[in-house]
Amino acid sequence: MDAKHRIEEALEAALAAGRSEDTPPRLAAALRYAVFPGGARVRPRLCLAVASACGADDTKIVDAAACAIEFLHCASLVHDDLPCFDDADIRRGKAALHRAYDERLAVLAGDALIVLAFETLARVALRSPERSIRLMQTVGASVGMPHGIVAGQAWECESEIDLSRYHQQKTGALFAGATLVGAAAAGGEPEAWRALGERLGEAYQVADDIRDVASDPEELGKPVGQDVALNRPSAARELGLAGAVGYLQDLVDSAVDAIPPCPGSDALRQLILAETHRFLPDELWQQAA
Amino acid sequence: MDAKHRIEEALEAALAAGRSEDTPPRLAAALRYAVFPGGARVRPRLCLAVASACGADDTKIVDAAACAIEFLHCASLVHDDLPCFDDADIRRGKAALHRAYDERLAVLAGDALIVLAFETLARVALRSPERSIRLMQTVGASVGMPHGIVAGQAWECESEIDLSRYHQQKTGALFAGATLVGAAAAGGEPEAWRALGERLGEAYQVADDIRDVASDPEELGKPVGQDVALNRPSAARELGLAGAVGYLQDLVDSAVDAIPPCPGSDALRQLILAETHRFLPDELWQQAA
Repeated sequence: MDAKHRIEEALEAALAAGRSEDTPPRLAAALRYAVFPGGARVRPRLCLAVASACGADDTKIVDAAACAIEFLHCASLVHDDLPCFDDADIRRGKAALHRAYDERLAVLAGDALIVLAFETLARVALRSPERSIRLMQTVGASVGMPHGIVAGQAWECESEIDLSRYHQQKTGALFAGATLVGAAAAGGEPEAWRALGERLGEAYQVADDIRDVASDPEELGKPVGQDVALNRPSAARELGLAGAVGYLQDLVDSAVDAIPPCPGSDALRQLILAETHRFLPDELWQQAA
Repeated sequence: MDAKHRIEEALEAALAAGRSEDTPPRLAAALRYAVFPGGARVRPRLCLAVASACGADDTKIVDAAACAIEFLHCASLVHDDLPCFDDADIRRGKAALHRAYDERLAVLAGDALIVLAFETLARVALRSPERSIRLMQTVGASVGMPHGIVAGQAWECESEIDLSRYHQQKTGALFAGATLVGAAAAGGEPEAWRALGERLGEAYQVADDIRDVASDPEELGKPVGQDVALNRPSAARELGLAGAVGYLQDLVDSAVDAIPPCPGSDALRQLILAETHRFLPDELWQQAA
């Protein structure tokens, strides 16, 4: 089974474990809406790829880790789209959750996804208790206080924003979480994998900035020009289009150089180069080359 | 140290573990604002009381369990007070979090508290891995899908509300969570403690309904008359004041009758009778007697 298919099946199973006949039906539907159809599933794929490169021996724990990372990512999208933040109409090519349902269900669906992330890990944790506990600690650190994605998003509420912390926490933290939990789920040493995740997170953020100024909104599945409209920091605004694509290339190179020694390092390197190439359409890479 | 003091110290320590110099300061302040000063800390006190009645041997795990329950309760208050739900101005005698800060920080503080609940459990989990994993499963079930407090709140978003499920999930689930995790934190059998928690949860809900029609808003720390104003179901509206107080008394009696055999059952019974008496001011108990 390929990684994408495996992730979709694991997400389906984890969501199904949270359903019963006496669940409020609109909340159950809103949860599915927040998770399916997904985007590129970049973070859980990264988690699986690292686990596999480390020689993972327990599929169920690796799948749970990948699902937890994706549920937390979906929760952050749903809450970031709320009227009090980005007030987004469109997400992943369809109406944002608070438009398709309502604001209350968007708040609750995000909450339920955060809980579900930890429940999904706890459900398989007795298979390998100490490994699973370290996994939960790593997932918690990626998303909570003081440096996780919730803290990253909260920099938007400060009068003085610390830009490098903002990006590192808002985007980098969950990418680092994906590599760290991938390694931890395989029984490896997570911290060695932090640099790879953080650099990929920064690369992803730069690619996002580039797509925001240079993409077709229909292809992108969300509006473009938002960074200028909302006066958000953006590598493409600071460096120009060609400069930003060059910077992205440097980040990708430094990311693959940070892969720690492991049984599957060559395959992982190839995979990451192929995946990061997909961060931008071909014509954008060519424009800057 | 008395239970109240012990809980405040444990909450302080758990919050401090989520702080660092590069935390966004307004989010850190909003988290404190959501947790301190607390209400009566009914749920974490119940958790400690059950753990103690079961002969708990590990204070750190019991404290973490009590903190997790209280953080999840605080998160639910902050999110329920948002403009899209109750649009509450006042909570615990001061401005609701989204009024004191802003709506974005109220969303994020709730999210951060949910994560912190699981992190607090994970942080001490290696002391007793299997017990802690069961604790995390129990906490997840109390708050998430399909029957936790998030599901309970979501019944407000359905066109047809199932009242008994609404109350059982919205209030009963976290009271049952408090008794279950108290027992689990002591290494006991959690399910035997469900009936006590659910009946106390229902009693607390009925007391809340009564206070909403019969209290002084200054004493209560939040506005009164909200159930009528928001057309919410209420035992006091259905049974009248005296009828509702009588029903509350029956629930308390049936709750203490549900205490399973355990080393400290007599003391726990006395404690619960004293605590539930404080659910209402003396004059309300006397009015109905």
